[in-house]
Amino acid sequence: MKFVSIVMGSKSDYSIMAECGKTLEKFGVPYELIISSAHRSPERTKKYIKDAEAKGAQVFIAAAGMAAHLAGALAATTTKPVLGVPMESGPLKGEDALFSTVMMPAGMPVGTVAIGKAGAVNAAYLAIQIMALQDDELRVKLQEDRISKAKKVELDSSEIEVIL
Amino acid sequence: MKFVSIVMGSKSDYSIMAECGKTLEKFGVPYELIISSAHRSPERTKKYIKDAEAKGAQVFIAAAGMAAHLAGALAATTTKPVLGVPMESGPLKGEDALFSTVMMPAGMPVGTVAIGKAGAVNAAYLAIQIMALQDDELRVKLQEDRISKAKKVELDSSEIEVIL
Amino acid sequence: MKFVSIVMGSKSDYSIMAECGKTLEKFGVPYELIISSAHRSPERTKKYIKDAEAKGAQVFIAAAGMAAHLAGALAATTTKPVLGVPMESGPLKGEDALFSTVMMPAGMPVGTVAIGKAGAVNAAYLAIQIMALQDDELRVKLQEDRISKAKKVELDSSEIEVIL
Amino acid sequence: MKFVSIVMGSKSDYSIMAECGKTLEKFGVPYELIISSAHRSPERTKKYIKDAEAKGAQVFIAAAGMAAHLAGALAATTTKPVLGVPMESGPLKGEDALFSTVMMPAGMPVGTVAIGKAGAVNAAYLAIQIMALQDDELRVKLQEDRISKAKKVELDSSEIEVIL
Amino acid sequence: MKFVSIVMGSKSDYSIMAECGKTLEKFGVPYELIISSAHRSPERTKKYIKDAEAKGAQVFIAAAGMAAHLAGALAATTTKPVLGVPMESGPLKGEDALFSTVMMPAGMPVGTVAIGKAGAVNAAYLAIQIMALQDDELRVKLQEDRISKAKKVELDSSEIEVIL
Amino acid sequence: MKFVSIVMGSKSDYSIMAECGKTLEKFGVPYELIISSAHRSPERTKKYIKDAEAKGAQVFIAAAGMAAHLAGALAATTTKPVLGVPMESGPLKGEDALFSTVMMPAGMPVGTVAIGKAGAVNAAYLAIQIMALQDDELRVKLQEDRISKAKKVELDSSEIEVIL
Amino acid sequence: MKFVSIVMGSKSDYSIMAECGKTLEKFGVPYELIISSAHRSPERTKKYIKDAEAKGAQVFIAAAGMAAHLAGALAATTTKPVLGVPMESGPLKGEDALFSTVMMPAGMPVGTVAIGKAGAVNAAYLAIQIMALQDDELRVKLQEDRISKAKKVELDSSEIEVIL
Amino acid sequence: MKFVSIVMGSKSDYSIMAECGKTLEKFGVPYELIISSAHRSPERTKKYIKDAEAKGAQVFIAAAGMAAHLAGALAATTTKPVLGVPMESGPLKGEDALFSTVMMPAGMPVGTVAIGKAGAVNAAYLAIQIMALQDDELRVKLQEDRISKAKKVELDSSEIEVIL
Repeated sequence: MKFVSIVMGSKSDYSIMAECGKTLEKFGVPYELIISSAHRSPERTKKYIKDAEAKGAQVFIAAAGMAAHLAGALAATTTKPVLGVPMESGPLKGEDALFSTVMMPAGMPVGTVAIGKAGAVNAAYLAIQIMALQDDELRVKLQEDRISKAKKVELDSSEIEVIL
Repeated sequence: MKFVSIVMGSKSDYSIMAECGKTLEKFGVPYELIISSAHRSPERTKKYIKDAEAKGAQVFIAAAGMAAHLAGALAATTTKPVLGVPMESGPLKGEDALFSTVMMPAGMPVGTVAIGKAGAVNAAYLAIQIMALQDDELRVKLQEDRISKAKKVELDSSEIEVIL
Repeated sequence: MKFVSIVMGSKSDYSIMAECGKTLEKFGVPYELIISSAHRSPERTKKYIKDAEAKGAQVFIAAAGMAAHLAGALAATTTKPVLGVPMESGPLKGEDALFSTVMMPAGMPVGTVAIGKAGAVNAAYLAIQIMALQDDELRVKLQEDRISKAKKVELDSSEIEVIL
Repeated sequence: MKFVSIVMGSKSDYSIMAECGKTLEKFGVPYELIISSAHRSPERTKKYIKDAEAKGAQVFIAAAGMAAHLAGALAATTTKPVLGVPMESGPLKGEDALFSTVMMPAGMPVGTVAIGKAGAVNAAYLAIQIMALQDDELRVKLQEDRISKAKKVELDSSEIEVIL
Repeated sequence: MKFVSIVMGSKSDYSIMAECGKTLEKFGVPYELIISSAHRSPERTKKYIKDAEAKGAQVFIAAAGMAAHLAGALAATTTKPVLGVPMESGPLKGEDALFSTVMMPAGMPVGTVAIGKAGAVNAAYLAIQIMALQDDELRVKLQEDRISKAKKVELDSSEIEVIL
Repeated sequence: MKFVSIVMGSKSDYSIMAECGKTLEKFGVPYELIISSAHRSPERTKKYIKDAEAKGAQVFIAAAGMAAHLAGALAATTTKPVLGVPMESGPLKGEDALFSTVMMPAGMPVGTVAIGKAGAVNAAYLAIQIMALQDDELRVKLQEDRISKAKKVELDSSEIEVIL
Repeated sequence: MKFVSIVMGSKSDYSIMAECGKTLEKFGVPYELIISSAHRSPERTKKYIKDAEAKGAQVFIAAAGMAAHLAGALAATTTKPVLGVPMESGPLKGEDALFSTVMMPAGMPVGTVAIGKAGAVNAAYLAIQIMALQDDELRVKLQEDRISKAKKVELDSSEIEVIL
Repeated sequence: MKFVSIVMGSKSDYSIMAECGKTLEKFGVPYELIISSAHRSPERTKKYIKDAEAKGAQVFIAAAGMAAHLAGALAATTTKPVLGVPMESGPLKGEDALFSTVMMPAGMPVGTVAIGKAGAVNAAYLAIQIMALQDDELRVKLQEDRISKAKKVELDSSEIEVIL
């Protein structure tokens, strides 16, 4: 089965990353979600990635805060696309996690999305867009989602807009 | 034909983004490359994206500096995966372009890579990783590339290493 | 009718941007105010700008947070003056929105004001100053406002000042 | 006569701000350009602003680096629109000048443009857009400029583009 | 009479700057304290500085937030020492005010202290140190204060310290 | 007796640095803990360091916020390893303390750890790792701690993980 | 004799801090200038400060880069006014030195000036302003300097200004 | 044999990290030095760390730029002390590498030193200080080095100092 794999570095990332899972569910994309740390459980992380890849993981999503090495550790273990979500945790509010996730050396990409909740949702969307390259049904759902988003803007606006 | 589409916002981005094209060529991945600006030629940008999508573009790579809106403009036009390369141009050395590219709102992802040349190469790698999901030959090439990268590290080290 | 047009990228910007509307009302300057997103509703945004311009919009004010592309999208659509208000939303507290709004490429200006509420008020003031170039009554009101602001400072000071 | 007034804080700003003057010339917009400092010649600055306003200045453009107070000083002296160009000078490369120019308190706006040369050009463009509200010929020139900018993008692209 | 003059740009700075006044009182140094803005009441600010200087002000302390021009405006008006306290107000938490206060051009110094409350206290201390150059009694008080501060550290430590 | 010495610059650092002490206790490593300031009690600081060194201190841990000079002051007084914990206090949230602690000149190292609580714990861990070079029992405890940390990750994951 | 004392932390600061000495010479203010490090020669630094204070030093100027503790070390040793010049050295271009110099705790002020050369000159000016409180001749020179600075602005302007 | 192990992530780090080796040589401390990447050669890195630890490595020094994960990868592999040197490479000039190296999660410390060359030297010094806890000869050398550093300051000063 083709699926998306979400790995987060710490239990404290769960409340945000649950949004990532919910977005995948909304589009009917199967996913796995585990906690595994680049530093505290490197062997587990590596083994999980290898196993998930063998089982059909198409895209990996890694979420971590502060010196966020998790996405990079995944990128070093697999040649499947790895997306990184910098968490907002700690005194530097995710600017550290953003730099640690995005500034990868040539040949080891991490497709990085926004810090925090918007990023958690967007990692799911980007994974879905990648999956949709092989799945016409998903492609149509993405296009419908765009239309509904545009309608939502109109609806939001209608509640407050002032037109002369 | 399935291919990667590279769009850059300004002629001055070409010397860096040529590295992106070269990386795709190294893996035998066909690509298009044009200059089109989110602000100076929005109609052309939109038309190109639609045409490229129809012709078979699988992944879009957008490169821009300063208030780098190009990747976001692409993301708003297509539901194909969009990768963003923040350019190092201008007095803020790409920190502005990084923020403008990566901090996208929920539902409109840009998979952002490192500022500058490392990012230009990595956008190509990430695009290849996405293409490889449907292409076993490409998958094998990516794995071989990893092996050759690891060997290159050993070779580099052998020139200077001190072992007791 | 000559008026000011306020566009904000998200419903969540409304509580701040209401201050912009209130300031225009205080000076008797007519305005329109809508929600429309550069990314979620690009067609609506473009159509609105063209319509508003045709109806007499003199100055556009765009408010957005994070990778704030809205002001730039407006600037690319009209040659009327566009003012940008970076919102304080998200983990980077508007430093991202400031860079995304102000660092526009040559030929596509956005007159950017302060992040957040002070900016919402100042975008209105700057729009009024621009309208006042063709409206003597408005010019006088701006001068009176300056006098009343100076008096307010004196009044504020009188409550706490220590003079030997 | 209606004209634009450019004030820069230091002789060292001239090579950049000359671009501002050239842009106004290209559109046939008359301008004055002087050096006057918020700190070293505050009386001269104030007198000049008052005189220029009386002579017909419609928009003021202020350029300064580091603790860039000049635009704010102008904004406090006139109710005409004031645009600010943060200079790239000094060890902080204009991030200080950007903050000092844009973060003005409510009621005292400075329409701030990009740091450095792009900003010097854009202050001119924004001033022209403001002048064009009362000048149809100028409005047409701005629209023609947009067309020529879009053509320039196509031309730039044609030199390097790769189309499948 | 020789005294210290405290000027703050806004009523909202008072709760912090009251600490500055209290510190001066603790050392028996007379002071004046007013609100006057560089932008909203430039004439009042200038007149006050001139009057205070004539009445015996030895040191000026200016407190302002965001694009904090007040200390610079004072420095341009008097040749007496001017100390600047960057306020923590606004989304950038005083980093803007710090840059706007400290990065003054050559010949126009502002002796800048820490952002916020520590700075409010330290501006008073630095003013007292300057006054003490002409006042032996004050000099002794400053030395005694150092001794009492060192004792306070010991006392604080004694409550929690662990010594083997 | 061989022990670790913890010095913090202010009483307000205690609630965070207590975590440092607790971590040492968990590993059975004896420690001293005092408050002494680089600026308010420089003599006491110096005397304490000399005394502690004579009594057997192997590693010094210094915690301070803002212009955090304490670790550097220790590094200048002893040739024993000095570790620095930047505190999160003040408007700059510890970015100032990080720079003040880590950017030491050549020949005067401070081994700096993360800002705030993670750093307080990590300074203890790093001190224990240094002590363990001479203490096999401690070395074993560190290895066991790693295993228990990896198990904790698995346990945390088991509560929320989704496996297909 | 009353004089100003300049201390710099490293030989590499000399080319910049020579500007500080030159400025004092221009006003006929006697000064001492030495190299002494907070970390490499703390005893020498302390002894020098005590000796200089005894000999008549009125104001201390400290220049240092990176984790710039020198000004703080002086502030802890004397109750005379201490001014700090953050040097532009190192990869962070003086932002580290600025934070390390200005963010001093309450009761231990350092009057901080701009990073680099402008700061070197301004520390001299601020010292002269402090000395001038007891020296009428110096006060007059400062006022004359202001007039000549204003004239210089006019002269600079006359070379390039465009007046309609 | 007890020795220090230096690992750098890329050939381009060698010219800076050679200073680290030179410093160790000056103190007669044996060391190994290799290139191995956290991402390009993770297996080699892990194997090397395990082998070096078995052979007697007491302290590991890791140098990397941009998203600098190398020190963290070492810290996850060994319980020996790991020191991190953030390289100045890339557009963000080492601020990214600093955050990626220092902001490690609790339990996985990296003793981080200054960005760039000063850090390369200081990592060696800190490693020597750690080795000196078990080596009296080394301890004496460190104390002598302090004396010679203080003398060097005096010598440097004597060439330029101005004493009244």
